[in-house]
Amino acid sequence: MAKTIKIIGIGAGDPDHLTLQAVKALNQVDAVFLMDKGPAKDKLIALRREICRRHLTERPYRFVEAASPERDRDGDYAGQVQDLNARKQDVFERLIGELADGECGGFLVWGDPSLYDSTIRIVGAIADSGRHDITWEVIPGISSIQALVAKHRTTLNRIGSPVEITTGRRLAAGLSADVDSVVVMLDAENAYEALAESDAFEIFWGAYVGTPDEILISGRLKDVAGEIVRRRAEAREANGWIMDSYLLRRDEPKS
Amino acid sequence: MAKTIKIIGIGAGDPDHLTLQAVKALNQVDAVFLMDKGPAKDKLIALRREICRRHLTERPYRFVEAASPERDRDGDYAGQVQDLNARKQDVFERLIGELADGECGGFLVWGDPSLYDSTIRIVGAIADSGRHDITWEVIPGISSIQALVAKHRTTLNRIGSPVEITTGRRLAAGLSADVDSVVVMLDAENAYEALAESDAFEIFWGAYVGTPDEILISGRLKDVAGEIVRRRAEAREANGWIMDSYLLRRDEPKS
Repeated sequence: MAKTIKIIGIGAGDPDHLTLQAVKALNQVDAVFLMDKGPAKDKLIALRREICRRHLTERPYRFVEAASPERDRDGDYAGQVQDLNARKQDVFERLIGELADGECGGFLVWGDPSLYDSTIRIVGAIADSGRHDITWEVIPGISSIQALVAKHRTTLNRIGSPVEITTGRRLAAGLSADVDSVVVMLDAENAYEALAESDAFEIFWGAYVGTPDEILISGRLKDVAGEIVRRRAEAREANGWIMDSYLLRRDEPKS
Repeated sequence: MAKTIKIIGIGAGDPDHLTLQAVKALNQVDAVFLMDKGPAKDKLIALRREICRRHLTERPYRFVEAASPERDRDGDYAGQVQDLNARKQDVFERLIGELADGECGGFLVWGDPSLYDSTIRIVGAIADSGRHDITWEVIPGISSIQALVAKHRTTLNRIGSPVEITTGRRLAAGLSADVDSVVVMLDAENAYEALAESDAFEIFWGAYVGTPDEILISGRLKDVAGEIVRRRAEAREANGWIMDSYLLRRDEPKS
């Protein structure tokens, strides 16, 4: 009998981001896989356990923990992530090996599994390898950028215009002139600062959105960039880690 | 006493896309505003009523319906939408006028209210106008593009790369060479067909995703574009309307 793997988006930090579909999927799981890492590890694992305690109420289940490999900082970024994913795949395969035939295991992914997360790629590669008899599915979740703009009560796109979702690394490499709205995730280096001179942008920034530690700052980028840098550094210092994202919106051309 | 307005994302068509946060918000609502339009109107209203029947169980509530203005096809697109939104604002203000002081009204928005939807803009404009004493909040929801890629079990972005979310109208005007992954919503004209010649793209297409009518097609764009055009036309004919979206992913440069 095949094993079942569910990749379940659990939202951006607020336990109420969970969808009814995710609650149903959780309640079909025999084993919840836990493999957080870094300074936020204890908090993230505690939050997952709390989600399971509250919502995985219909059947017995167990947690299966594994140490998550860390990214090696040598070489180019995509290469680093590919190397990391190869090592993660070994860990995932060991976790799947912990399931009995016919059992179901769940990966609980922060935000939405389709955005800047490798769980889908890795489980897909395992399924394709033929080494394990698994069926698998993906449950979408509220991403941090949706939580961010909801709290700021603003939209991602301007009317009829596109929005780009990108990384701090890419933004630091330059923003093309035809991009009107850009959402930045994974920015460890305050890449927005480089655009603050131009006085052509609004910013909607948030950290730990949906959690008790939430911080929201918005305004003209030129005016608030310094405050964001400061509050961000203070919060990272106080919490030992930070999870933040932001929307930059370029001013409309004067007509 | 101020009135409260909740803009509640209800997901992309599957009632189980509803988040726990949305269920809680629904249960604080005295009046559910309904203003669908077009050939899908009856189905969409029935689906909203079903969501309320199932989940708005903690208190009495009423439906308040209004005719939704249609977009005038004269002038440029942004101008048409702005004109439409001005007329929608009048309708929204009448709906808010139906609330007694201290009551709460809910706008139930398909997908996520932050993507290609004007409810946030319009309610924000009403709040800013000072004509109504309202407090308002936004509850994020699973967007159709998240439902789409979850069903296709693929990611939105390649590792470390950006993703652009845009409209069929924009795609028809051209795709810049540095865009790797692009999600297209609101494409009434099969804009993807223009890229099918190049044999440089994969496509992940879906219609009515998360509903019993769901259709999913994926593959090399060159190979499946014709099938998508055909199935799309058949489905629109059969149902009287269509709601579809797709992800295009450009082949990685050979290295």
